Amino acid sequence: MKPLFVIKIGGNVIDNDHELGRFLDNLAALHKPWILVHGGGKLATDLSVRLGIETQMIDGRRITDKATLDVVTMVYGGLVNKRIVAGLQSRGINAIGLTGADGDLIRARKREHPTTDYGFVGDVERVHDERLGGLLQSGFLPVLAPLTHDGKGNILNTNADTIASETASALASFYHVQLVYCFEKQGVLRDIDDEASVISRITSATYTELRASGAIAKGMIPKMDNAFTALRRGVSSVIITHADSVRHLGQQSLLGTTIALE
Amino acid sequence: MKPLFVIKIGGNVIDNDHELGRFLDNLAALHKPWILVHGGGKLATDLSVRLGIETQMIDGRRITDKATLDVVTMVYGGLVNKRIVAGLQSRGINAIGLTGADGDLIRARKREHPTTDYGFVGDVERVHDERLGGLLQSGFLPVLAPLTHDGKGNILNTNADTIASETASALASFYHVQLVYCFEKQGVLRDIDDEASVISRITSATYTELRASGAIAKGMIPKMDNAFTALRRGVSSVIITHADSVRHLGQQSLLGTTIALE
Repeated sequence: MKPLFVIKIGGNVIDNDHELGRFLDNLAALHKPWILVHGGGKLATDLSVRLGIETQMIDGRRITDKATLDVVTMVYGGLVNKRIVAGLQSRGINAIGLTGADGDLIRARKREHPTTDYGFVGDVERVHDERLGGLLQSGFLPVLAPLTHDGKGNILNTNADTIASETASALASFYHVQLVYCFEKQGVLRDIDDEASVISRITSATYTELRASGAIAKGMIPKMDNAFTALRRGVSSVIITHADSVRHLGQQSLLGTTIALE
Repeated sequence: MKPLFVIKIGGNVIDNDHELGRFLDNLAALHKPWILVHGGGKLATDLSVRLGIETQMIDGRRITDKATLDVVTMVYGGLVNKRIVAGLQSRGINAIGLTGADGDLIRARKREHPTTDYGFVGDVERVHDERLGGLLQSGFLPVLAPLTHDGKGNILNTNADTIASETASALASFYHVQLVYCFEKQGVLRDIDDEASVISRITSATYTELRASGAIAKGMIPKMDNAFTALRRGVSSVIITHADSVRHLGQQSLLGTTIALE
């Protein structure tokens, strides 16, 4: 099967023009097919503040009322997505910016929760794997904003990490998929204060040990759980690495943490 | 050659949820391939006001400084485009929302003007006809926001009427293209106060007469000039009609004005 990287790029990089430019340089130097998924939460919060809309977060998830939905649709689907696409096009990469509503690529259902009304937040129901694959085959490199739709005319706000893992899992029948989470460190660190302590490989067995020893804790746990779910659904490996390392994906020289079932 | 309608929908319809819903019902009932081009100027002006950004217009064109560029990128590329796409998907239409930056579909150059600095405003250089045609052949119905890019990483604000006529002209080598401008009247009226006075057909010869008699004046003149340019570039006909009439395109029952060279 052909290789495919599904790459999630987070807030720190997107919020900063210089960092974003460097990331796009690195991505443009990766001569392998990919799908990019971006966030943009900080810019959405900034716009909300300017518009006098209160931002409410519960467990790291944005409560998305109608006004907030308009903000994220504008920021994720418009500002951030088109800035990335134009930046990639200027580097000779044939990027195409999409949300889950476009081409019905990602269908979600509005989250029902017994005690919290998350508003217009969507949990992914299915990714249209064949259509995404078709776009790749036509030479487009998809840039996905973290927005889905419910098929009833509503855009829904959906976590970018989840979009990345759902997309990676859906395409695992057609491609040898590696799911890549870029962040501000070189990988998962054994000692959080030591950038040189990157754990190069984590398996189901070593993950249990690392959790027990406290080396993996807090914010990293949902990411790891997400990673193992994707692996069980057919994704070949999950890589956690620095945004600067993207150009080395698929090479021996890559610095980062590779997560695999065994 | 296969038929293709390139349909421009303007502000009045987009700004109003009820009107937009009715238009999308009508568009969904048109069982022929199309490309939709939308505006959204009033919503962009509204957001600018809320953000305290001054809107400056010269001859109906928005002066687009950096702050205004971000506003139109958010409103056209995000809010309006995705609202239309989600609305069409809920009606079973496989819409895909795109700007000129996506897939490098529409390349423009930043407008140079001897006396006025229009800012980030783009004049279309070329439309990637084969790629747009490829998307249509893959079963996608493109919804184009009035944004282009310069290939150097800049999004540019581009008049939606122009995007429609340039796209129609570019696709005229592959399709029997009809360019459709939807607006709030039934067509070009002989008497502006009489909705029943629709001129059903205008040719180069009758246009000269209608202009001389004053029946066609002011805002309609650039639209007509645009129409004749498109016709000379291979577009089969240009239709000016009410948004409600879209479902009747290609039928004898269509009410509206058809413009043709002869």
